[in-house]
Amino acid sequence: MPKSFHPPQRTLLGPGPSDVSPRVLEAMARPTIGHLDPLFVAMMDELKGMLQYAFRTQNALTLPVSAPGSAGMETAFVNLVEAGDQVIVCQNGVFGGRMKENVERCGAIPIMVEDAWGQPVNPNRLEDTLKAHPGVRTVAFVQAETSTGVESDSRTLVEVAHRHDCLAIVDAVTALAGTPVEVDKWGIDAVYAGSQKCLSCTPGLSPVSFNAAAVERIRKRTHKVQSWFLDLNLIMGYWGTGTKRTYHHTAPINALYGLHEALVMLQEEGIENAWARHQRNYEALRDGLEAMGLTLLVEPAHRLPQLNAVRVPEGVNEAAVRDALLNDYSIEIGAGLGPLAGKIWRIGLMGQASNPRNVCILLSALENILSAQGHSLDRGAAISAARAALVGMATEPFG
Amino acid sequence: MPKSFHPPQRTLLGPGPSDVSPRVLEAMARPTIGHLDPLFVAMMDELKGMLQYAFRTQNALTLPVSAPGSAGMETAFVNLVEAGDQVIVCQNGVFGGRMKENVERCGAIPIMVEDAWGQPVNPNRLEDTLKAHPGVRTVAFVQAETSTGVESDSRTLVEVAHRHDCLAIVDAVTALAGTPVEVDKWGIDAVYAGSQKCLSCTPGLSPVSFNAAAVERIRKRTHKVQSWFLDLNLIMGYWGTGTKRTYHHTAPINALYGLHEALVMLQEEGIENAWARHQRNYEALRDGLEAMGLTLLVEPAHRLPQLNAVRVPEGVNEAAVRDALLNDYSIEIGAGLGPLAGKIWRIGLMGQASNPRNVCILLSALENILSAQGHSLDRGAAISAARAALVGMATEPFG
Repeated sequence: MPKSFHPPQRTLLGPGPSDVSPRVLEAMARPTIGHLDPLFVAMMDELKGMLQYAFRTQNALTLPVSAPGSAGMETAFVNLVEAGDQVIVCQNGVFGGRMKENVERCGAIPIMVEDAWGQPVNPNRLEDTLKAHPGVRTVAFVQAETSTGVESDSRTLVEVAHRHDCLAIVDAVTALAGTPVEVDKWGIDAVYAGSQKCLSCTPGLSPVSFNAAAVERIRKRTHKVQSWFLDLNLIMGYWGTGTKRTYHHTAPINALYGLHEALVMLQEEGIENAWARHQRNYEALRDGLEAMGLTLLVEPAHRLPQLNAVRVPEGVNEAAVRDALLNDYSIEIGAGLGPLAGKIWRIGLMGQASNPRNVCILLSALENILSAQGHSLDRGAAISAARAALVGMATEPFG
Repeated sequence: MPKSFHPPQRTLLGPGPSDVSPRVLEAMARPTIGHLDPLFVAMMDELKGMLQYAFRTQNALTLPVSAPGSAGMETAFVNLVEAGDQVIVCQNGVFGGRMKENVERCGAIPIMVEDAWGQPVNPNRLEDTLKAHPGVRTVAFVQAETSTGVESDSRTLVEVAHRHDCLAIVDAVTALAGTPVEVDKWGIDAVYAGSQKCLSCTPGLSPVSFNAAAVERIRKRTHKVQSWFLDLNLIMGYWGTGTKRTYHHTAPINALYGLHEALVMLQEEGIENAWARHQRNYEALRDGLEAMGLTLLVEPAHRLPQLNAVRVPEGVNEAAVRDALLNDYSIEIGAGLGPLAGKIWRIGLMGQASNPRNVCILLSALENILSAQGHSLDRGAAISAARAALVGMATEPFG
């Protein structure tokens, strides 16, 4: 008969989930109350307001979908796309491919704009494709490709989409709170994120936001949304404004306590400070990795500070390195996916995990493991480089 | 700026969520580890085994969907139903109506077998409808209607469905662990439940199980499942057997810790003992309510022990009673829905909340509130009746 499960303490430096603060874990363990309890409804309102803060938006339709990021993606597509629609999907990694699957399963026609894995989406190619397909109503792309560590230029891509009277769906799963996602300033029409990346909450919720143009599209649909569970017309009755909420589904109460606490922490820090922290720790990690002779997959201008794709050096057994990190140091990093399998590691510095301590313990562990595998490197150079980059981070445990 | 949210301690005696054990809450607060971590994968296997125990099945395809019960319902329909199919939906409350919505959103044709709210599904009417519609491939019904407190006869309804070469989809959201759900013995083809009812876990997960006939139906589909997130072909790659798991979506790690602990507790008690406990506490509640002059909506033979629909007496302000219970006693009970709105209260004794203490505090509070509203009753009779019914429950705080 199975016994209680006691997980070890890991340091989560992969592509997500990231380290979760004890404050968030403790919040999740608070007493469960009803999903229609007036106190819970008041908490929901606070949560919506804090998600608006994180997304930099005034959109009324801003809420956490009661399921992981993949369901947030599906929420965007099933509500905004109808059978027979043409949808441009920009693909430069795994998650663009998942968008394509979503379009097809809506009975719509995906038109692909493909860039190499590790490259950002090319706005010129998007524009050319829009010119060639005047019937397209929707453009979708991934701002922060979790499979490669590339950031695409959301602001420009949304501009291009709008020039051709399209709505823009933006995947911000890994972006949100790690790098700017300016929903209102950039005019993003629909966006979804994940709780378990730079928000440092546990996995299982997907914050989403839809602007007025997206809501109008949903209201004017000719057919019902194919998913009952993800139908925003119904979800809004529960997450809407006012004290009278209509039961739709039973909200994941305790998971929402956790997200609420994670967002309180984000507000306490200030989102601009969170972006700066992600940038600073990335720079230290980068300097350390380069001092170790390692190189990053992505060109500097398009790198996500929260997710670093590091090339596996010739002759190194990449899986053995990850196993050693996990088993000896209890540190998780990610493997490459698709065409990058075996070729890169994905090192995340997301949310709470983006801190100088993690930069140093990772560099130190990696140095030891690579040395043990016979990879020649300048011992100690990585930590020195990282420490140099971290000097002056007064609010953190180095200075 | 919002502060941390500190919910009060409620006693949850509504239609769910039910009271969550501190053991489950504490489990949810354990450190988050990765969804591909070998230790997490081992935990998933234990979880599947314990869900098989709860569902009384050997079905390999038994797992928790990463979203609430509504998504479990949708998982059953989108995987087993294709556009153009005829599906018989038996409706005797809210959740049969939701099944109809699911069928329609699959592009299929629902054929309704309707019974009054408060009545069980009539097997003879199902059989007549099957005879009249020989092209039907699927029958769906709710074993435990959460909106009315009625239990339908799953075993017989599945038999009828099988006689007509149909697969049977059974909604066991409120049934599982409160009253027998014998997946293998009764031959249920597809079943879904909720974490937040008689399993006494927090809301947000939906255990499901599919037998070999259902899996064959899914494998032989002519079109892809319309939901990427809920496509069992893909989910099985992650929840399947063996140590090599394919990433699908990021599992809600900490929520699964909670469900694991709730299932450990169910195994410790023994599911037959859990059923008996639900029955015994129902009998005490019933005796107490009747001693107070209140009556139950459902005929004794079809009552769910875990969910009691109580008629609101003439002249009583039902909402004021619920408000007083919540505000003065921190006890939540449920209101009626649809045609039963304003006419019934729904009193749940589910999972951990099914205990003699809750029976007595509820009866006592209700007696005081109804007296204060001027409803004449025999003071003290309810508790005496409940105590008499509870005599001999040696393992609980009465004897």
